[in-house]
Amino acid sequence: MSNGDIFVGEIIGTAILILFGAGVCAAVTLRYSKARASGWVVIAFGWGFGVLAGAYTAAPLSGGHLNPAVTIGIAIDTGTWGKVWIYLLGQLVGAVLGAVLAYLVYLAQFQANVRKEGTTEGTADEPVPTLGIFSTIPEIRNPVANLITEIIATIALVLPILAFGLTKGLGESGITVLIVSLLVVGIGLSLGGPTGYAINPARDLGPRIVHTFLPIPNKGTSDWGYAWIPVVGPLIGGALAGLIYHVAF
Amino acid sequence: MSNGDIFVGEIIGTAILILFGAGVCAAVTLRYSKARASGWVVIAFGWGFGVLAGAYTAAPLSGGHLNPAVTIGIAIDTGTWGKVWIYLLGQLVGAVLGAVLAYLVYLAQFQANVRKEGTTEGTADEPVPTLGIFSTIPEIRNPVANLITEIIATIALVLPILAFGLTKGLGESGITVLIVSLLVVGIGLSLGGPTGYAINPARDLGPRIVHTFLPIPNKGTSDWGYAWIPVVGPLIGGALAGLIYHVAF
Amino acid sequence: MSNGDIFVGEIIGTAILILFGAGVCAAVTLRYSKARASGWVVIAFGWGFGVLAGAYTAAPLSGGHLNPAVTIGIAIDTGTWGKVWIYLLGQLVGAVLGAVLAYLVYLAQFQANVRKEGTTEGTADEPVPTLGIFSTIPEIRNPVANLITEIIATIALVLPILAFGLTKGLGESGITVLIVSLLVVGIGLSLGGPTGYAINPARDLGPRIVHTFLPIPNKGTSDWGYAWIPVVGPLIGGALAGLIYHVAF
Amino acid sequence: MSNGDIFVGEIIGTAILILFGAGVCAAVTLRYSKARASGWVVIAFGWGFGVLAGAYTAAPLSGGHLNPAVTIGIAIDTGTWGKVWIYLLGQLVGAVLGAVLAYLVYLAQFQANVRKEGTTEGTADEPVPTLGIFSTIPEIRNPVANLITEIIATIALVLPILAFGLTKGLGESGITVLIVSLLVVGIGLSLGGPTGYAINPARDLGPRIVHTFLPIPNKGTSDWGYAWIPVVGPLIGGALAGLIYHVAF
Repeated sequence: MSNGDIFVGEIIGTAILILFGAGVCAAVTLRYSKARASGWVVIAFGWGFGVLAGAYTAAPLSGGHLNPAVTIGIAIDTGTWGKVWIYLLGQLVGAVLGAVLAYLVYLAQFQANVRKEGTTEGTADEPVPTLGIFSTIPEIRNPVANLITEIIATIALVLPILAFGLTKGLGESGITVLIVSLLVVGIGLSLGGPTGYAINPARDLGPRIVHTFLPIPNKGTSDWGYAWIPVVGPLIGGALAGLIYHVAF
Repeated sequence: MSNGDIFVGEIIGTAILILFGAGVCAAVTLRYSKARASGWVVIAFGWGFGVLAGAYTAAPLSGGHLNPAVTIGIAIDTGTWGKVWIYLLGQLVGAVLGAVLAYLVYLAQFQANVRKEGTTEGTADEPVPTLGIFSTIPEIRNPVANLITEIIATIALVLPILAFGLTKGLGESGITVLIVSLLVVGIGLSLGGPTGYAINPARDLGPRIVHTFLPIPNKGTSDWGYAWIPVVGPLIGGALAGLIYHVAF
Repeated sequence: MSNGDIFVGEIIGTAILILFGAGVCAAVTLRYSKARASGWVVIAFGWGFGVLAGAYTAAPLSGGHLNPAVTIGIAIDTGTWGKVWIYLLGQLVGAVLGAVLAYLVYLAQFQANVRKEGTTEGTADEPVPTLGIFSTIPEIRNPVANLITEIIATIALVLPILAFGLTKGLGESGITVLIVSLLVVGIGLSLGGPTGYAINPARDLGPRIVHTFLPIPNKGTSDWGYAWIPVVGPLIGGALAGLIYHVAF
Repeated sequence: MSNGDIFVGEIIGTAILILFGAGVCAAVTLRYSKARASGWVVIAFGWGFGVLAGAYTAAPLSGGHLNPAVTIGIAIDTGTWGKVWIYLLGQLVGAVLGAVLAYLVYLAQFQANVRKEGTTEGTADEPVPTLGIFSTIPEIRNPVANLITEIIATIALVLPILAFGLTKGLGESGITVLIVSLLVVGIGLSLGGPTGYAINPARDLGPRIVHTFLPIPNKGTSDWGYAWIPVVGPLIGGALAGLIYHVAF
């Protein structure tokens, strides 16, 4: 795979992943959405099938990592670091692009996220917070516990991928893409409760940048104080998965 | 594939798709349905497995496009336009047929969609609007935003299909049909909130024609003023996906 | 495949199908079940994965029809009727066995299906009707409409199977079994609303026999007046699917 | 496969299975979880995709049994008992490890499982019982009925696996892993209502040991009086499945 193919593939694939992922969070969160309040199972399947769509599309170009934690895990296992920076750069650019696309899909809903005439703060009709559509927010703010959650959840993502997936080439087998996407559904259902499962630094950082700069009505804080945890945690988790795989398999 | 096979395949496949899709909307919408009010996750999986059923059946005959946006995307990528009209005609005929079949499956429910004795307008027992069973209705009526939503959602459908799917032949691999159907589930969950995700001109236009002419009690408006958006948006999206694919891959 | 293998395979496979199918209806219906009132999506996936379990198990022995409508559809297409009676007999025996197994799994729940002390008829604590756990009940009792629903829903099952599935041998490909099971999920979600989707004469008749003879507390009617529709409808649907396939493909 | 590979594979695979399984029970049960009260469908898919993740990872090392009932069923069918003890030991160690990992993922939630200031016993804000996150609890305590449920549900797991799965080598085919994981989803939906479907002695015993020794606030009883049923029932079920398979196939 050429550097250009990798770069383009990771941009397109990660953009699609975040389009679906931020999209499903918008779908469940925003008023005037047909999927309003449809619950956690919709969130988890939406993100999982975003992996399906993104990796399926990117596989012929870049192998479809879409996640710095995956790229780091593979690099640690194989000892090959030369193209890591292309993957990471493509993933971040793609994540930014995908968050903008999700914003455009829900443009009218974001514009309607204002207080209804005649209502007052604290009612059901006040604007909904928008950061959760873009980036993760912990249920309980506890840096040590949040970091542990992200590390373990990322190991649970990257170790199976290493054991069976990317090393055989996602591009060669639709079934591998499908299984990895259902794996991500499972991580969301099982391990997403405490922090909203970033498990991917680009997935959290890119959309947070977009949330900071986009002119969204009543958008609320972008919470940069928490932003390091969904970057550092998944990177540690991906590296640990690479080590475990290298030793145990 | 002969012209006759393509025509028959697209009719049967699209009819099955719309039977499932309009069927699941009827199932969730109409009184006296066991799936009444079972939520957006049921809508999204019902449409997705309609793609599974329809494409799986049509694949040996026509390759199973079932969607003018897919056909246009492939034509733009390959530059081959000779059989496009057969695909489109078959898709529209199939969509009409499928909507009639869904109406027949829910015949008793449609006939029972009347005001209950002793109730008055505005109560829970007034007739439910029926257009949403057949065609898409935006949550917020905003032509520019609705068009953007349909364009992006259709790119998210057609680009992955081009990158991995139809060009390898849906007919050759059950796994491709399965992945495309889950991709459609994902689009429904993630991108369906604002407009109900037509992402297929035939899917919206065919059933709208049926809704206009069928003698459904209390059917309400067929809303032809909106009808151009779920036709034009997906066609633009399909064409853009074809262009992106042609350039990037 | 020998006659003995076919007979044993259809018994085991259909028993597993009905164990899962009646099981999921018991799970959602009965008090003191962890899945109580978990909704239509659980019903549809429970039946679909029952097809997965049963057909996956039976495939090496009998090909895994598990449904007289499928067997009839294949016979009409191929013109081979010699072993049809073995399939049908095995399917009916298996359906009876599976319903008994489901009863045993939920034994304590069935025994607890009594009026709570101190409550009176009409309250939330009266016994739940049990027939719906075993056999189908229409939402609106209308023989013509119910028959049409079952015929169309069965065509939507058997035509895709013929186009892609059993004729290539379920036993040869796990992916085919998986797709057919998701097809059944889709039929449940989309077409199950009016009648509860028998789409399989053995699935309805076998458990109805069991319901009639088992000593279930407060079991209510076995409703034999309706029993012909979920037998005749699917048989007509399977035959029509065989004809359509024979002509169109 | 070497003894060391089997031991390591079963530890890692079973740890991942229980991490997802106990994780999803924590996600649905504990306060301050994004998946709080999201229902039985989330439980069933979480456990099923735990099987996907664990078996997919373990397959290259040990074949991915992850369950003494599966190991016993295979041993009874094949008559090969030499490595059974390695599998069982690895499974128990893995289950203990997985339960500890799930506890760590939900650490802040477990620590917050205390009575809120100013509330009194019996309100919605009292601590939730934690045993159900680790091990199974029957809805109705009836040893004979509970044992029957676990036996039949385990046969429904192991017989399909024997007929199609492990004997062909999970490691050779992603599709087999996927189907077995959806089979487990189906067992949860259909047969999990009465006892919470242990269907795996290690899955219940390992986390119960962890629950007994971990310093969880307000953890409540570890209910060792029930602990023999989810061990004995699945072992009987696995053995019966081995016998049925050996005779019928």
